[in-house]
Amino acid sequence: MTSQGNNLDRWYGSYAERTAGLAASEVRALFAVASRPEVVSLAGGMPFVSALPRELVSGAMERVMRDKGPVALQYGSGQGVPALREQILEVMALEGIRANVDDVVVTTGSQHALELVAKIFLDPGDVVLAEAPSYVTAMVVFKSFQAQVEHVLTDEHGLVPSALREHIARLRAQGRRIKFLYTVPTFGNPSGITMSWERRLEVLEIARANDILVLEDNPYGLLYFDGPPPHAMRSVEEEGVIYLGTFSKTLAPGFRVGWALAPHAIREKLILANEAAVLSPSSLTQMIISEYLSTADWKGQIDTFRGVYRERRDAMLQALTDYLPDLSWTVPNGGFYVWLTLPDNVDSKSMLPRAVKELVAYTPGTAFYANGDGRTHMRLAFCYPTPDFIREGIRRLSTVINGELELLNTFSQTAPLATVRAEQRIVSPPANLG
Amino acid sequence: MTSQGNNLDRWYGSYAERTAGLAASEVRALFAVASRPEVVSLAGGMPFVSALPRELVSGAMERVMRDKGPVALQYGSGQGVPALREQILEVMALEGIRANVDDVVVTTGSQHALELVAKIFLDPGDVVLAEAPSYVTAMVVFKSFQAQVEHVLTDEHGLVPSALREHIARLRAQGRRIKFLYTVPTFGNPSGITMSWERRLEVLEIARANDILVLEDNPYGLLYFDGPPPHAMRSVEEEGVIYLGTFSKTLAPGFRVGWALAPHAIREKLILANEAAVLSPSSLTQMIISEYLSTADWKGQIDTFRGVYRERRDAMLQALTDYLPDLSWTVPNGGFYVWLTLPDNVDSKSMLPRAVKELVAYTPGTAFYANGDGRTHMRLAFCYPTPDFIREGIRRLSTVINGELELLNTFSQTAPLATVRAEQRIVSPPANLG
Repeated sequence: MTSQGNNLDRWYGSYAERTAGLAASEVRALFAVASRPEVVSLAGGMPFVSALPRELVSGAMERVMRDKGPVALQYGSGQGVPALREQILEVMALEGIRANVDDVVVTTGSQHALELVAKIFLDPGDVVLAEAPSYVTAMVVFKSFQAQVEHVLTDEHGLVPSALREHIARLRAQGRRIKFLYTVPTFGNPSGITMSWERRLEVLEIARANDILVLEDNPYGLLYFDGPPPHAMRSVEEEGVIYLGTFSKTLAPGFRVGWALAPHAIREKLILANEAAVLSPSSLTQMIISEYLSTADWKGQIDTFRGVYRERRDAMLQALTDYLPDLSWTVPNGGFYVWLTLPDNVDSKSMLPRAVKELVAYTPGTAFYANGDGRTHMRLAFCYPTPDFIREGIRRLSTVINGELELLNTFSQTAPLATVRAEQRIVSPPANLG
Repeated sequence: MTSQGNNLDRWYGSYAERTAGLAASEVRALFAVASRPEVVSLAGGMPFVSALPRELVSGAMERVMRDKGPVALQYGSGQGVPALREQILEVMALEGIRANVDDVVVTTGSQHALELVAKIFLDPGDVVLAEAPSYVTAMVVFKSFQAQVEHVLTDEHGLVPSALREHIARLRAQGRRIKFLYTVPTFGNPSGITMSWERRLEVLEIARANDILVLEDNPYGLLYFDGPPPHAMRSVEEEGVIYLGTFSKTLAPGFRVGWALAPHAIREKLILANEAAVLSPSSLTQMIISEYLSTADWKGQIDTFRGVYRERRDAMLQALTDYLPDLSWTVPNGGFYVWLTLPDNVDSKSMLPRAVKELVAYTPGTAFYANGDGRTHMRLAFCYPTPDFIREGIRRLSTVINGELELLNTFSQTAPLATVRAEQRIVSPPANLG
């Protein structure tokens, strides 16, 4: 038993070994401070739910309670409400996916689908392959089942196939068991990068050749700005992909309704794991969403969200161009995030307290790596603050970064302010901006 | 890797070892048949949600959306909505519990609290002590984390202290690690039995002396019929008890809102596990319940539920007395269940298909034992059908049981019909009934 507590905890010797992996985020306390209203937070990935007309939700609730109250208030199926699962097929069809309603499992947000997949696949010591960088709370889940996350090199087109091939070969030569490849191929979190269609096909081919399951997590795919992204990986590969979707970004996260689409045998185990974990997902929230999808112009509402987030992305890119012209960043065609690359000698994690003091918050790049990398990066979320606040936040951030560089310059002559250039690895030029 | 699938499943060699413990219930297919309207189901534990005036819920929903829509639709705290956690203290105070709001963690039904507790405590091979018989889906959760359930003898006053002491000593002598004692002390599922106050104190004393955590699961405590049950075990022991509560039975399960009250250090780990599993429980359903508790006569509503279930319990006990006078059963003072003891040579599991053919369903006793025991018992749930249907269900059941006995008599002279008596182990006489 490893140490997972202290002598103030009477039960510190009783925890499971996996519990050692459940550590509180180092930046958690800071984020509590960052939620004060005077701080411009570019840290959290909260959808802008105020862009959803409240009466659309209220009306759906009212009709569900009027017409189907006793069913909505009751336990339901461990697989989810059948009518909603049918509608989920329509949502996925927008990304080229054809599937059987029997293979959809509704979960308590797609986060719970991650947990269930991890629970049924991961033994201690197993390896999960993931993009570098990768979604922080997916890695928390994998680690909570004592798996090891191995990052695979990415560039501006997503996972690099040659790197993936080599990494698999190296791990296998070490005798390590790879359980699946976790990817957010569209508008990645935190990178904002989208895997190209050619890369998707190559990655699927490598996975197939190596008998590695692909876990395709796609919360942002419908929130594109400049044109639709490539179809989902699941659209061309059925038996080798578990696809995860959610209503958290296209409707609202407060419902906690997401789903997994899985090959038949895996689907059966996911249902059993879901029943063990929660008996059944909430009938009430599923039925409200089903009613909303039946009666509201939900595609129009997604268009509204696209417009909101496009404007915010543009505001962030413009502010970065204006205030931090020497740095580089990714230019996302959708989703919630820009990935900023700092000068080599600036550490985003140690800089965060100073940023919060200057009333701006971000997520340090280290959060998105399982191996301590990411110090010279940060994730900037443009989903929640208004364009004016985004601009002000970037202005404050530039003050903090420039202050940091001045400070470093005081103690060293190796990186003069005017010539600092960022690492160029996963960066596209800021397109479409003057 | 143990075999957990077949060659039709391309991934059958990839599952985690724990997934072997996630088997589908043997009676699951039958229950699908049993949900046909012509079958009187005494099997499921579905609350009678139609006794909840719909407008109470609709009104709460409407006000939440009107006054706090953007908060209700957003991600929330991994620990749960603060206002609701305060109100949960008031609910628990009815059972003698005094606690700090910081130690309450809201979960996706109390089932998910079971899952989270299991996740943070159970390593493969660990032992969980549980009543004989015990709640089936708690055992499914423990087994899904590769723990072993060891049943402790119970009588009509609950867990038998001497048996508990001996069992602990025997297991420890074998070098086995006991992680906690799982108990439903009030109106037990499936037994209907309530642990007496003296027993609660004795069991807590044994747990304390042996450094064993107690997991007190209390979904039914407020649904008493003939007078309040003893206070919760958590009311006298803070550091050694994790208490689980839920709104599924006092309000409705469709919300999927329950909670854990845990010692401080454990509570912190539960929050981390909750965040990994679902990010945050649904803000929307929590806030609707909070609004309901603020504005409705929720204690009066619990009284209404008590009246409904008391009438159904009485109908079941009367029907058992009328139709199966030679058998014995428990007489619950609350909750949802009666535990019926059959003649020694009748097997409730193999009899179930014949019962469903006769249009009555129940849960075989074997479901509530991890070790194959329980064949001569069944759980009868009186929560959902109306009194008339309960009576008809018991009449049909008596036909099935008597038919079974006649059949057995045809092939054997060892158990003549007229003298068959049930095992008397955990049985009380049918009190309060003529």
